[in-house]
Amino acid sequence: MKKIKIAVNGYGVIGKRVADAIMLQPDMELMGVSDIASDWRIRIANLKEIPVYAHGCEANDRMVEAGIDVAGTLDELLKQVDLVVDCAPRTFGAQNSEHYRRAGVKFIVQGGEKHVVTGHSFVAEANYESALGRDATRVVSCNTSSIVRTLTALKRAGLLKNARGTLLRRATDPWESHLDGIMNTLVPEKEIPSHQGPDAKCVDPELDVITTAVKVPETISHLHYWTVRINRPTSKEEVLNAFRTSTRISFIRYSDGLSANNAVKELMLDLGRPHGDMYEVAIWEDMLKVEGDELYYGCLVDNQAIVIPENVDAIRALMGVEPRAENSIKTTNKVLFIHPEFFLKPYLV
Amino acid sequence: MKKIKIAVNGYGVIGKRVADAIMLQPDMELMGVSDIASDWRIRIANLKEIPVYAHGCEANDRMVEAGIDVAGTLDELLKQVDLVVDCAPRTFGAQNSEHYRRAGVKFIVQGGEKHVVTGHSFVAEANYESALGRDATRVVSCNTSSIVRTLTALKRAGLLKNARGTLLRRATDPWESHLDGIMNTLVPEKEIPSHQGPDAKCVDPELDVITTAVKVPETISHLHYWTVRINRPTSKEEVLNAFRTSTRISFIRYSDGLSANNAVKELMLDLGRPHGDMYEVAIWEDMLKVEGDELYYGCLVDNQAIVIPENVDAIRALMGVEPRAENSIKTTNKVLFIHPEFFLKPYLV
Amino acid sequence: MKKIKIAVNGYGVIGKRVADAIMLQPDMELMGVSDIASDWRIRIANLKEIPVYAHGCEANDRMVEAGIDVAGTLDELLKQVDLVVDCAPRTFGAQNSEHYRRAGVKFIVQGGEKHVVTGHSFVAEANYESALGRDATRVVSCNTSSIVRTLTALKRAGLLKNARGTLLRRATDPWESHLDGIMNTLVPEKEIPSHQGPDAKCVDPELDVITTAVKVPETISHLHYWTVRINRPTSKEEVLNAFRTSTRISFIRYSDGLSANNAVKELMLDLGRPHGDMYEVAIWEDMLKVEGDELYYGCLVDNQAIVIPENVDAIRALMGVEPRAENSIKTTNKVLFIHPEFFLKPYLV
Amino acid sequence: MKKIKIAVNGYGVIGKRVADAIMLQPDMELMGVSDIASDWRIRIANLKEIPVYAHGCEANDRMVEAGIDVAGTLDELLKQVDLVVDCAPRTFGAQNSEHYRRAGVKFIVQGGEKHVVTGHSFVAEANYESALGRDATRVVSCNTSSIVRTLTALKRAGLLKNARGTLLRRATDPWESHLDGIMNTLVPEKEIPSHQGPDAKCVDPELDVITTAVKVPETISHLHYWTVRINRPTSKEEVLNAFRTSTRISFIRYSDGLSANNAVKELMLDLGRPHGDMYEVAIWEDMLKVEGDELYYGCLVDNQAIVIPENVDAIRALMGVEPRAENSIKTTNKVLFIHPEFFLKPYLV
Repeated sequence: MKKIKIAVNGYGVIGKRVADAIMLQPDMELMGVSDIASDWRIRIANLKEIPVYAHGCEANDRMVEAGIDVAGTLDELLKQVDLVVDCAPRTFGAQNSEHYRRAGVKFIVQGGEKHVVTGHSFVAEANYESALGRDATRVVSCNTSSIVRTLTALKRAGLLKNARGTLLRRATDPWESHLDGIMNTLVPEKEIPSHQGPDAKCVDPELDVITTAVKVPETISHLHYWTVRINRPTSKEEVLNAFRTSTRISFIRYSDGLSANNAVKELMLDLGRPHGDMYEVAIWEDMLKVEGDELYYGCLVDNQAIVIPENVDAIRALMGVEPRAENSIKTTNKVLFIHPEFFLKPYLV
Repeated sequence: MKKIKIAVNGYGVIGKRVADAIMLQPDMELMGVSDIASDWRIRIANLKEIPVYAHGCEANDRMVEAGIDVAGTLDELLKQVDLVVDCAPRTFGAQNSEHYRRAGVKFIVQGGEKHVVTGHSFVAEANYESALGRDATRVVSCNTSSIVRTLTALKRAGLLKNARGTLLRRATDPWESHLDGIMNTLVPEKEIPSHQGPDAKCVDPELDVITTAVKVPETISHLHYWTVRINRPTSKEEVLNAFRTSTRISFIRYSDGLSANNAVKELMLDLGRPHGDMYEVAIWEDMLKVEGDELYYGCLVDNQAIVIPENVDAIRALMGVEPRAENSIKTTNKVLFIHPEFFLKPYLV
Repeated sequence: MKKIKIAVNGYGVIGKRVADAIMLQPDMELMGVSDIASDWRIRIANLKEIPVYAHGCEANDRMVEAGIDVAGTLDELLKQVDLVVDCAPRTFGAQNSEHYRRAGVKFIVQGGEKHVVTGHSFVAEANYESALGRDATRVVSCNTSSIVRTLTALKRAGLLKNARGTLLRRATDPWESHLDGIMNTLVPEKEIPSHQGPDAKCVDPELDVITTAVKVPETISHLHYWTVRINRPTSKEEVLNAFRTSTRISFIRYSDGLSANNAVKELMLDLGRPHGDMYEVAIWEDMLKVEGDELYYGCLVDNQAIVIPENVDAIRALMGVEPRAENSIKTTNKVLFIHPEFFLKPYLV
Repeated sequence: MKKIKIAVNGYGVIGKRVADAIMLQPDMELMGVSDIASDWRIRIANLKEIPVYAHGCEANDRMVEAGIDVAGTLDELLKQVDLVVDCAPRTFGAQNSEHYRRAGVKFIVQGGEKHVVTGHSFVAEANYESALGRDATRVVSCNTSSIVRTLTALKRAGLLKNARGTLLRRATDPWESHLDGIMNTLVPEKEIPSHQGPDAKCVDPELDVITTAVKVPETISHLHYWTVRINRPTSKEEVLNAFRTSTRISFIRYSDGLSANNAVKELMLDLGRPHGDMYEVAIWEDMLKVEGDELYYGCLVDNQAIVIPENVDAIRALMGVEPRAENSIKTTNKVLFIHPEFFLKPYLV
């Protein structure tokens, strides 16, 4: 089988995980990563024997001076690939997209970019098919990905009327928490509704979802609280079953001692997952409650990990190598050890 | 005018503030405070020339040994007073209440106790009159006080159908954050609904309010996000006017740079308020939004301060010295410099 | 008595405190403050009825638009004063100094500027007299001020050979901890020795002091650990007496429950100090230990407050109105309620 | 080759890591782990197919009820093994030691126990040989292990006169940071010297080392600052070479972007290490400075990981299967991918 040849531009929090995930896929080949960093972060790519390309000549010079093994520039990398996954910092993806178009390669941008950059926003379980054969798509942000995953499951079961959520957002990522953090405070987003709710409509315009959002002083994961109005009388068990139709939603339980996001992170590390990543949306099963026409629940969203499988599926959709969402998701889940019950499957190496 | 003679049992976060507030009231006299501590915390009472009583003989011995000036024991203090405000740690108030009844003094317990301890739960703007002449009441918790204040204002304006809130609770108070904290994590309350919603019904059984709650790693104040369903078409201005009918709700504005709870705390300190206390519920005016039959807003609740004026009013209600809520609130607000517009009134000494 | 007419340029963490302190001095008159902010921070000056001047025309326009009551521009303010205390952010003081010189006013810059900006670095107890009548001086940083205060006391007692310190620096100030913090990490200063040690030599070239420094994720105060080599056999009591010769060093005690910097902050707030400020260096008396030719101790430095009395004294020194350090210090200490024993003096309003 | 049969009692932060490390050793066999937990933590052992034993009958009942697969009780486990590594919480190890003696198995306790519990304290590079064939030893704490490692290297090179250190201790471990933390504060240890310095003398009585210690609000790792007096004129390069004689000391560089402990943690995760563990003491190479007769440096100590290789070596020493420290260390280092240059060796799976 001919493998899809892929570049990753931007080897940061998302880029390095996408690169690792691509290397594990049976139908993909990572041709290289591109970045501007010349420190320990990119040195890791050398150590992993991933070809490193410089994003421009200045970056190339800095890398060479720092002793990084450089294979060439981004332009040279783009010539070798079918598709590039852009993982550059927010707003740079929009700039880069022109470059990718000129180079004639398909591309994926991340959720920090606007929908208009590609004209298509992607969540595998919601709209994989609509991305088939497109030139480009945008994998929506971690928050929006989890919103679409969970609400799509409820919608499919005919339960969803509307959803109102409060999103507690981790303030910064662990690797840069020495540079850019908040301390002993809470920072609400200025606007209500916050952008995550409307952004879900870029994937599914039928979703009626309003969110408020606030930065909280921790680095581990987002925590969402939801009040969902439902369409018809239902039971907790029916709701759980609706969520179970997604392979990327998992349940956690207070009764199992998993009572805070640090404990769930430790579980992921204990499971031997790379970086302690949790690709699944984790819903507290025993906290979830149905009352009258309302459903309440809380869930955790690992902002570093949740979009990784989405990027992998988006690659297959753009390349048109797999027409059915179900099949792509199955392949991706298998190699990333994603599944809905943390304690049933031996992830461990 | 004969002043109400009052004891404060428990000189901690709430007790020391209640004691200070009582000393400022024209119609009250603080006869003493009682505690078990024998360190810097109680030494402050000596410095302020508040008579210090020991909660029992062992405490008395420890205090004397530590060089605290002790005026006697709690029992001796109770003989001199009309009323005792219990500010002991959670659940001790229930134990103490038997003691107060036997001593024949009226008493107030705090929101950490159950409603049944006094059979009455108090928020001045909601049910002052129903406490007139009673032997005892319970000032509800900081979270519940703010819920009742704000929802009562909406209810009075005929706007409130129901309210769904997410409460971000400061994890511990600053003075004991070296002993009892959480770090780099979020700790949801196990149960949905959390207890704060139902507790509001102890004050006003008509309120339809559901809350979820989560501990967050900061010590400054709680932050609440609300989705309120309203009864009839309304406007943002009408909602603001409804809130303005409360003298203990204030507005803050993002456009004024007040974009996080640390900034609001600094404002309170700049205003010269003791301990930087904010007795008012602070609603972000420019974040508040009305959309269809829903109202969304966020507000800050200073958990150390918000119940202080409520305790003062509860004293007057129990003693029956002031039959009208409006008048007691006016007196309390005046001496504590409480008012709805932070920048219009010179608090500053 | 003719009062010294003073401007404060920069109404931030230090500027607002210096302004408040000047207003309390019997021999000084605050003519106004200047800033570029147009939000709640400067609104406070209006509320306190301090004349507000805009640092330039753009700032003036923004202030007017925001409804700030503006008295004029910095240039107009400078014409009215004998001296300006520059409290602008780091490095702006150097730029401003040219402006002050041209305006013909004496000036003080803060420790964020280099020594060369004024050619003189100031700590009241160490070198007040050398600043008499000068055109300008620099009040050294909070860390350096505390280093000079404590080591000067040991030097005067003939005890100091050399000092090696580790400085745990609060990462940011509370008012801006939503913008600029570190989270769940420790950030060492790149260079050993860190700059604070050498900087002490700008005040007293004889001091042999080396420091290492690290940012820690809290906002309350710095904590210093010292290993001091002493010149001759001594006792703990002799060391304590050496420190007691400074009126701006205080003792705190673990045995009194003051076991962490949050507890000491709460004490300052309980004492009714504005902003909970601690102008004194607080040394843990019962932690301090003498062993062989070495002395070990830990102390707290309130980075927002400690330089405030130093600025006040520096004003008197530059103006030459008080030839003796001792007298200026006495006046400053009296109005700011500074003294070496927190529990003996009633600060409380 | 007959493998050493080993039990691990206490499957927490240290226990689970020791268990994993034992499973990787060519000459050891993990017969089972024992614990009292019945939640997700012990469920991991089931998933890893490690036999789980209950520490007593009550624990057995709870485990069975929670659906844990239980192989028996600790007593039954002890009958099958040559040696037990006690990783129970502080002070429980002392209690358990009697039990182990009665069961006739050799045992290792951790640094939370006192030296007297076993009469021998262990650090592989310092005193492996003295533990050969003993019934029991104590692997000293993370802080003390790192102190002995680094100072032993300096001592061997004839450089060490004495060492004065300030230890910034992470306040709690990530997995329990929702239960037991400190917030926005610093908590000094009451006593100077803190216990870590003297404890190093349990391993090597010749070490002249004094430490002060303070808890800081982060969960990642300890950070030590050292001032070392040296015996003779030396150079930075000679000092670095002295450290290089230890295979468990590594260098990190600011110039490589590794400027805080969160960045170093990310590096460990990027390297694919289990839990992101760092077994080595990491010294900042470019921060280290020699000046006169003094050496200054800072280093990081991963408190969850650093004692793991020490426990492995201690097993071989007690069992007498490998008479030379060098050989045991080499084997341990190889399977745990421990080595002195993070960027030279491909750890990655």
